[in-house]
Amino acid sequence: MADERQAAELSAAAAARLIREGALTSEGLVRACLERCREIEPRVQAWAFLDEEHALARARAADESTREGHPVGALHGIPVGIKDIIDTADMPTENGTVLHQGRTPREDASVVTRLRAAGAVILGKTVTTECAYFHPGKTRNPHNPEHTPGGSSSGSAAAVAAGMVPLALGSQTNGSVIRPAAFCGVYGFKPTHGLIPRTGILALSRTLDHVGLFARTLEDIALAAEELAGYDEHDPDTRPRARIPFREIAAEEPPMPPMIAFVKTPYWERASEETREAFAELVGALGDRVEEVELFRTAAEAWEWHRTIMEAEMAANFEREWQYGRDRLSEKLRALLERGRDVRALDYQRSLSRILVAQESFEELFTQRYDAILTPAAPGTAPKGLDSTGDPSFCTLWTLFGLPALSLPLMRGAEGLPLGVQLVGRRNFDARLLRTARWLVSRIAAEED
Amino acid sequence: MADERQAAELSAAAAARLIREGALTSEGLVRACLERCREIEPRVQAWAFLDEEHALARARAADESTREGHPVGALHGIPVGIKDIIDTADMPTENGTVLHQGRTPREDASVVTRLRAAGAVILGKTVTTECAYFHPGKTRNPHNPEHTPGGSSSGSAAAVAAGMVPLALGSQTNGSVIRPAAFCGVYGFKPTHGLIPRTGILALSRTLDHVGLFARTLEDIALAAEELAGYDEHDPDTRPRARIPFREIAAEEPPMPPMIAFVKTPYWERASEETREAFAELVGALGDRVEEVELFRTAAEAWEWHRTIMEAEMAANFEREWQYGRDRLSEKLRALLERGRDVRALDYQRSLSRILVAQESFEELFTQRYDAILTPAAPGTAPKGLDSTGDPSFCTLWTLFGLPALSLPLMRGAEGLPLGVQLVGRRNFDARLLRTARWLVSRIAAEED
Repeated sequence: MADERQAAELSAAAAARLIREGALTSEGLVRACLERCREIEPRVQAWAFLDEEHALARARAADESTREGHPVGALHGIPVGIKDIIDTADMPTENGTVLHQGRTPREDASVVTRLRAAGAVILGKTVTTECAYFHPGKTRNPHNPEHTPGGSSSGSAAAVAAGMVPLALGSQTNGSVIRPAAFCGVYGFKPTHGLIPRTGILALSRTLDHVGLFARTLEDIALAAEELAGYDEHDPDTRPRARIPFREIAAEEPPMPPMIAFVKTPYWERASEETREAFAELVGALGDRVEEVELFRTAAEAWEWHRTIMEAEMAANFEREWQYGRDRLSEKLRALLERGRDVRALDYQRSLSRILVAQESFEELFTQRYDAILTPAAPGTAPKGLDSTGDPSFCTLWTLFGLPALSLPLMRGAEGLPLGVQLVGRRNFDARLLRTARWLVSRIAAEED
Repeated sequence: MADERQAAELSAAAAARLIREGALTSEGLVRACLERCREIEPRVQAWAFLDEEHALARARAADESTREGHPVGALHGIPVGIKDIIDTADMPTENGTVLHQGRTPREDASVVTRLRAAGAVILGKTVTTECAYFHPGKTRNPHNPEHTPGGSSSGSAAAVAAGMVPLALGSQTNGSVIRPAAFCGVYGFKPTHGLIPRTGILALSRTLDHVGLFARTLEDIALAAEELAGYDEHDPDTRPRARIPFREIAAEEPPMPPMIAFVKTPYWERASEETREAFAELVGALGDRVEEVELFRTAAEAWEWHRTIMEAEMAANFEREWQYGRDRLSEKLRALLERGRDVRALDYQRSLSRILVAQESFEELFTQRYDAILTPAAPGTAPKGLDSTGDPSFCTLWTLFGLPALSLPLMRGAEGLPLGVQLVGRRNFDARLLRTARWLVSRIAAEED
């Protein structure tokens, strides 16, 4: 490449191709990303840990391995940002809380192991809110530093949006991938529950925790998902299954134009005027390929089920922090744990039992008529102020029922802030959701021409 | 057979052989069992539902099928008693509570389907305590009608012990198979959690509920287990696995004499003087093949974990009964549900999380040295009186951790009442536990000669 500094703007897939062809080195790519970090990080604050020399050394090792003719993985030489609740053996993992300051895990999380096996270079650790809950970290929205980047995967979304890294991992227990992706204007992907293993990641809630991805292209989402999906014996919610050719499926044309269900959700009243107008326009543009669908009546209770499960499971998972350091937790987290400790087993089980039933309703919806659900990713653009990471309400349903969800950076609101579109798919049909998303994106692009 | 009335004394395996050979008809066998019922039932009261004509019709149908040359299952023509919490499409299933009086399920439980597929004739429904919890049904101990038969599978244990049926199904959530088997002096088998599906059976606690078996020989236990084990898509705790040749494994000689761990459990203080003496003698007779083993320290807390899980899950499963008919439940069950409704999700999850850890400790014990654990099945012989079904404490551990357990009718206490020996095996090595049990039984028989 003539000017390697431009390499930071490449997608992961494009950069990986150039590296494979010998037209770009991993060191060059990582240098370009670090250069971009030096320029932008002071304003955005996306990183919890970034050691330039360490990253460069790993990049040089990747290049060395190429020169020696070793087989090259799909992410060979590609820098990736890792949310700081995901364990890395060579970098601290502090979970966004003073209680875990200086924590240095001995082992990589399974997703990190898989990334490294595919040749990726872990660039650094990205800022998370406190324990991936609500209390914000230092990160700001790259589109306007007075606005929140969203959370809890704040640093991953901002770093990808600002071009500091092409790919980053996050996690979602309510709206922690889809919301920051929408606020920062990048693709965010929360796969089917259990598709990507959570071993070695701070556990909030076994029922609700998902690993998620951030990228600037759909192809990159497919590329990373293909490497990360699959059974892990230490995550009881993963299942042995055949390797899914994400990239191939995502790149295919749908056999016929998809049919989209536009779902306002019972939280539509929270949608901003801007969001309502934007969706009216979007639905108009999709014409007969979209129909408004009202969910089953009990869906309105799902937020309560989600709250009950999240509070109860977090209270169980944070027993130690509660016992030894609750005075050093934020008030919000402390209050959540306090509520969680009082949840009755009866209400907890009742909420859990609703999931399977609701999943059947969605199966019906997807098998009988619709390829995907179209719904806002958030009530509006990133709110002003850094005290809150915004409202996850438009993500709660899909997290609770474990459906795959994508945030697509298709629209803009006032002051040019990104306005996210969320596309939700059938459980275990993640690759097909990416295919439908690609169709939607090109359809909208065609409309705009 | 010369005198078909003696057929009631046959084991299921022996009767099945005679039927296959044409030396006995299913009708003859069922008549013999019904004859025995007519004689003994007034005193023992093992049956909740018994329709002679219906049973005979099914037996004649089995004989007809043989005559027509249809393939013959392993239990062809064999009468089986079914605990009245297990659904049968052709007989009522009243769960031992007035709240479900007249309940007639539309479908067979999976275990009933499997029995019928193997050719079995469902003789009738056996008495259960109220909802398989503590409040006794009408059944009396066949060895002495002033003593409890144990519970909650009271009728199944008593019917098999009294020779009214060679085989019966029960269930165990705490000590509901092992205890009545011990009190009535028959073999009782509670397999590994998840080995036999519970679809179509009154649910008390997903974590603790097991299907169990009663028979008068170990061979019959193996015969029935082989037909009943296996994956069922509606029981999430069953797993697809290869068919286990229970009868073959159970009949084999162990490659070397088994090593037995004698475990007194933290509840040894409850063991009667008689039990202590009997076990001292038994341990003495086994010589160097037995060693006393003390469990890990936290095992003492397991009864508390069991209580928390059972109360919490029963409260969730009996919401409807609580809401619409709690005044018609026994005081004991009502009190349990009341406690269960107050269990905190935190304590419930904490208790659940202990199970996996403890299971690992047992794996170690079994893989490193011991083939089975020897322990009492109950504190002593069946207590006098019919107000209580006795103390399940010696079963709680093995139920909680899902280990396979057998009650062996090897000893007798005062007044000739049976004194049960319990043998516990490694998870998922159920057939091998039967093999070890066969070794133990013949070893003790040899000692007695």
